[in-house]
Amino acid sequence: MELKELKQMVVEANKELPRRKLVKYSWGNVSAADRERGIIIIKPVGVPYENLTEENISVVTKDGKILGESWTPSVDLDIHRAIYENFPGVNAIVHTHSTYATILAQLRLPLVCFGTTHADYFAGDVPCVRELEEREILDRYEWNTGMTIVDYFKENHISPEDIPAALTPGHGPFTWGEDVWDAVHKSVVLEEISKMAVHMLCIDKNAQPLKRAVADRHYNRKHGADAAFTKDDYGHGMIQR
Amino acid sequence: MELKELKQMVVEANKELPRRKLVKYSWGNVSAADRERGIIIIKPVGVPYENLTEENISVVTKDGKILGESWTPSVDLDIHRAIYENFPGVNAIVHTHSTYATILAQLRLPLVCFGTTHADYFAGDVPCVRELEEREILDRYEWNTGMTIVDYFKENHISPEDIPAALTPGHGPFTWGEDVWDAVHKSVVLEEISKMAVHMLCIDKNAQPLKRAVADRHYNRKHGADAAFTKDDYGHGMIQR
Amino acid sequence: MELKELKQMVVEANKELPRRKLVKYSWGNVSAADRERGIIIIKPVGVPYENLTEENISVVTKDGKILGESWTPSVDLDIHRAIYENFPGVNAIVHTHSTYATILAQLRLPLVCFGTTHADYFAGDVPCVRELEEREILDRYEWNTGMTIVDYFKENHISPEDIPAALTPGHGPFTWGEDVWDAVHKSVVLEEISKMAVHMLCIDKNAQPLKRAVADRHYNRKHGADAAFTKDDYGHGMIQR
Amino acid sequence: MELKELKQMVVEANKELPRRKLVKYSWGNVSAADRERGIIIIKPVGVPYENLTEENISVVTKDGKILGESWTPSVDLDIHRAIYENFPGVNAIVHTHSTYATILAQLRLPLVCFGTTHADYFAGDVPCVRELEEREILDRYEWNTGMTIVDYFKENHISPEDIPAALTPGHGPFTWGEDVWDAVHKSVVLEEISKMAVHMLCIDKNAQPLKRAVADRHYNRKHGADAAFTKDDYGHGMIQR
Repeated sequence: MELKELKQMVVEANKELPRRKLVKYSWGNVSAADRERGIIIIKPVGVPYENLTEENISVVTKDGKILGESWTPSVDLDIHRAIYENFPGVNAIVHTHSTYATILAQLRLPLVCFGTTHADYFAGDVPCVRELEEREILDRYEWNTGMTIVDYFKENHISPEDIPAALTPGHGPFTWGEDVWDAVHKSVVLEEISKMAVHMLCIDKNAQPLKRAVADRHYNRKHGADAAFTKDDYGHGMIQR
Repeated sequence: MELKELKQMVVEANKELPRRKLVKYSWGNVSAADRERGIIIIKPVGVPYENLTEENISVVTKDGKILGESWTPSVDLDIHRAIYENFPGVNAIVHTHSTYATILAQLRLPLVCFGTTHADYFAGDVPCVRELEEREILDRYEWNTGMTIVDYFKENHISPEDIPAALTPGHGPFTWGEDVWDAVHKSVVLEEISKMAVHMLCIDKNAQPLKRAVADRHYNRKHGADAAFTKDDYGHGMIQR
Repeated sequence: MELKELKQMVVEANKELPRRKLVKYSWGNVSAADRERGIIIIKPVGVPYENLTEENISVVTKDGKILGESWTPSVDLDIHRAIYENFPGVNAIVHTHSTYATILAQLRLPLVCFGTTHADYFAGDVPCVRELEEREILDRYEWNTGMTIVDYFKENHISPEDIPAALTPGHGPFTWGEDVWDAVHKSVVLEEISKMAVHMLCIDKNAQPLKRAVADRHYNRKHGADAAFTKDDYGHGMIQR
Repeated sequence: MELKELKQMVVEANKELPRRKLVKYSWGNVSAADRERGIIIIKPVGVPYENLTEENISVVTKDGKILGESWTPSVDLDIHRAIYENFPGVNAIVHTHSTYATILAQLRLPLVCFGTTHADYFAGDVPCVRELEEREILDRYEWNTGMTIVDYFKENHISPEDIPAALTPGHGPFTWGEDVWDAVHKSVVLEEISKMAVHMLCIDKNAQPLKRAVADRHYNRKHGADAAFTKDDYGHGMIQR
């Protein structure tokens, strides 16, 4: 893919966030990693979504150095960088403060797999990762935030492809995917199933998860070798019924 | 009705789902059974609603065989087939993951008849049917899901015309009707009364159902021999006040 | 006012209900009483809001007899009639199944005056009136429903001008006013303050009402002899700040 | 800035309230103080937002006297005046009855800093100030309401720049800022984080606040000497990521 085209995709994916009502003002950012070129393309700080263009979208090296005359990247850049550096299969990341996913994050609760809508996309609960230590907050806060996500998956031997999302406590959700449309799609899904979970927990704090066999059935119907869906079916990261 | 016309109706009824905010992406499907021709028309897998046309809508035999060059049907086809095969008065089925009906399904709770809005459409509680056994999940999952709905109505001697909806536990709602507009209308109603029920249960887990005599009065005001409404009043499945 | 003009107002006020998201499909109706002519103008049964015109709006005598070639009125006509007959100062009535007001009605809870938004419009709690007896349900159900509202106000010596709304248990809200715009305005307010109340009750079932002195101050700032607002300020039933 | 331009800003900022769904009808008002000219510009009473113009926007002296042929100001004028008189750094004030902030106000609960979305804008909890005494309600109610906000900040040695918002019990939220766009922006944020807090409290009345070190980190990332954001980044009071 040409760099120009990738930049356009990142611009469009950022603009999708307010359209999908995942953000107010500029409370979110989408990035993409170009693994071959060793660069990251991310929303610049201080530019409203409606003004994003392929000219002002930020381009940085994988080490975070601003390239050429590129605009200053989002302050969240290092969270994205930590994830890209440790999850080689991830090509795009979305961060939002979407209402219901953030409510769970603020309650420091995982998003339990309560239903097949969840199981269609995630092979288990979406974790709420650990809180940062005092010293991790004071120094390299953003990088350390990204590493709490990375560490959770490594320590629990979970593939980031199987569960392409995490909640950071007191902060909000992150999702990722093979391209920006896939990652944005996951953010939309995460918000909707979080909304369901929040209302369930209002009624029953001990609500029970979906039966494992049904969860596996739904996840495998859509992913992996026996999937009933081909790649082409997905369109912009869509799962079709 | 000409086949072409029925196909157009199924296309339009599928497109109504996102308009009514019952689905995100493609989380739902509408089908119609043409009893005379022995066929089922249903949303094809992998086609966004906005791209549906009478050319790509799926046409299968009542046994589920794809006809001619028709596109591959929704993976949920066999749920629809089980219902059509066992409920001869049902000509259309709608499946969604609409937020509040799905919350109840994920809590494995029936939608109790709490008010006259419910009673205007359903002659009693909308059941949350039983969960599948392990073996029913592994083999013919979709067909078996449909049969849990069928079995519930048969075992409890309930007519599917009287209560044209069911919740499948951990999954979501199904509604049906005499045509696709009637079935979609029921899905819209089901979601709205589910929203009311969810909020009621947040306040009072022991909320009491509507008095039986009022429920009957409302249901019979709209259905059956003494109905104050004639068929023509309904328009597209609408109940008028 | 000419009859033609009043009919246009009733048509427009009915169309306002879906615009204000107070109804789905045709779950609501607005009527007006023309006291001089001794007639009631009300939404006809079986006509979607978008098709309402001054030609098909129903015109009946105050005793409920259809005039001339007029279309059949809403099945709720007799609820309206009971209110008009007993509350001579009421010139317009609105009935909806708006979500949050209906939730309170289904919980058989009054809408307590929890804040100044409520006190700006209602001089106290909006009552949830009594349930009907079995015999009142079987015979003249609609008239009797209207009379539970009338009786509540008479028995409690409350003026329907001071509290221009009531909830019928298991059913939904009714509001009224000096004209259709005033009555629709009250329905919008009722729904919004019901939404606030429902969420408050989710958090605290013993939430305390607004201090009486503040409630009186706000109500009197807008109504009565010392009101800071003149009639003209209201526009279409609006209370301005 | 020319007076004409400031009037246009106040007009536009008032119109932003319904666009941001912070108000129904005219339940809110925006004002600006012109410190040099010693005047306050505020929404006039009895004018719907859509009819506001620089001709009918109210202009009063800092003592509340109507200037020239100016329209009558909002009844809430004296709440604004008390704040302007005591918080010299405040140049604009917004009052609304936005749903979730009002729910907290009606519950007499502060808006606890539960997450980084809150900490990005407010250097601590948003207080719910004290209730008025009987005599304060009967005489100079609006002025006294404003003074409960002023007194809270003075008694608790909190700078109104650090926490640019307050809830008045049983009433609703007020926000302020360096200009009208900054103040409106704070009202939008306040409503969104209130929505999160309300749902959290439905699940867990003892929900824990954000760790202080994270809160400080986020607040200081956006404000003060070491801020990663320059003034220009904010656009219309926006905080960018």
